[in-house]
Amino acid sequence: MTVSIIGVGLLGGSFALALREKYPKMRFVGVDASVVNGQLALAKGIVDEVLPLTEAVAQSTLVVLATPVNVILQQLPTVLDLLQPGATALDLGSTKEQICVLADQHPKRAQFVAAHPMAGTENSGPGAAFRELLPGKNLIICDREKSDAECLKLAESLFRDIGMKLFFMTPQEHDLHLAYVSHLSHISAFALGLTVLEKEKDEQAIFDMASTGFSSTVRLAKSSPQMWAPIFDQNRANVSDALAAYIEFLQQFKQVIDDQDITTSLDFMQRANVIRRVLDGIEKR
Amino acid sequence: MTVSIIGVGLLGGSFALALREKYPKMRFVGVDASVVNGQLALAKGIVDEVLPLTEAVAQSTLVVLATPVNVILQQLPTVLDLLQPGATALDLGSTKEQICVLADQHPKRAQFVAAHPMAGTENSGPGAAFRELLPGKNLIICDREKSDAECLKLAESLFRDIGMKLFFMTPQEHDLHLAYVSHLSHISAFALGLTVLEKEKDEQAIFDMASTGFSSTVRLAKSSPQMWAPIFDQNRANVSDALAAYIEFLQQFKQVIDDQDITTSLDFMQRANVIRRVLDGIEKR
Repeated sequence: MTVSIIGVGLLGGSFALALREKYPKMRFVGVDASVVNGQLALAKGIVDEVLPLTEAVAQSTLVVLATPVNVILQQLPTVLDLLQPGATALDLGSTKEQICVLADQHPKRAQFVAAHPMAGTENSGPGAAFRELLPGKNLIICDREKSDAECLKLAESLFRDIGMKLFFMTPQEHDLHLAYVSHLSHISAFALGLTVLEKEKDEQAIFDMASTGFSSTVRLAKSSPQMWAPIFDQNRANVSDALAAYIEFLQQFKQVIDDQDITTSLDFMQRANVIRRVLDGIEKR
Repeated sequence: MTVSIIGVGLLGGSFALALREKYPKMRFVGVDASVVNGQLALAKGIVDEVLPLTEAVAQSTLVVLATPVNVILQQLPTVLDLLQPGATALDLGSTKEQICVLADQHPKRAQFVAAHPMAGTENSGPGAAFRELLPGKNLIICDREKSDAECLKLAESLFRDIGMKLFFMTPQEHDLHLAYVSHLSHISAFALGLTVLEKEKDEQAIFDMASTGFSSTVRLAKSSPQMWAPIFDQNRANVSDALAAYIEFLQQFKQVIDDQDITTSLDFMQRANVIRRVLDGIEKR
């Protein structure tokens, strides 16, 4: 069985490495716009061969789209056009609504499975891929009822085999929730990084005085702009709402600090403390 | 030699545990407004005895103030009043200007050392204390020239003995830098936690869909309100400026997303990516 990984970066590479452990005879073909990424993916043992998209898809039982979400929109119609009868196409994009709407317009919609693993790091490229990224994490499948039973069986079996837990929802629900639990935290980190870099002029002071709390909060500011700009764009209505709410809370908190209103300041933080319940659950799973 | 730890929580407790390893014969006396915290500190082996502040200070060669910064302002004059000749008082507060201004008004100013370790976690209380919190971390001493040479020698020796690296600056410099590299990241996390909890009504969805990136960014929202409200209040001019700059960047980014201005969105994130240089340095040290 041949699997094509289109985009041999953090996510596509990590998926291939996890699958390889469970299915040692599975053959992996890499497709990547970057020649260097293809070479690195071969050197790391992520894929057995690098081919142009057309040739790769023609040989594959499963095609995994793991490119930035704007590139997925460009590649998906071509991949479905070229997809062999009985084969399955799968995407791992961080937004789902525009991708699913596009898929709905294609005659081979049933051969497509729209998926999104709740996993990532702030690093990117084949060098950042690692076998342990996906096992133990959650995976969302959208519009499950629009996919053919056999295509679903393949995709869901592989995700479960590498230790992922599956959840199902509409692409609209997915994009709304992701705006809050993922996209907003990336923007908050990017803006925090920028504020500290551009307003705190003494970079040595940042370095000497920053603690693990700062590192943790700003970590996502290291993330790939090429990956995130199209995510924010495709989910802009939800992201804009989430960001407006976040800015509103920050403005309220600033007013409370300016007013020396300790009681409201304490109340604000005590309400935020409830997040401990959610985080402790995430850390335990 | 007897050391009093006033406030046997995360920071005071961790300092005592680290010192105990280097100085097994050092005697530790705990002072805490909470009877339960005193009992827990005894049970954990942080202190050998719990006493009222007056008795503790009377017996001590070193008195460590590790209470919230508003309580430090209340306790510092009393501690200095009661401090034995030749003894040293030390504070570990996260703000330094108001504490140093208050110390300057006391006749025993020279027996006081104003310090702040660049370390912490989102947890609090004696149960959260651990021996490894401070070793390897940086420590700021403010207004070093106002402290007596012998008092400084004791404080600096102990910090160096447990593996801390010392830096020196004015309390004004300290509070300005901390607003950016610590206080702002706490507010950004508190506001992020609150936005997600109050706008994303489906708590199960947060739980199922949040990844390690979300956990990392929002982690500080678990921090103690009683500790942080007085920090933001004492450093409110700097915190308010930092927060205004942060809100401004977020508003710009929201506009860029609303306008579908991908070029500026990419530029914004590429500028934020420079933080990688700082963070990679912090992780290596």
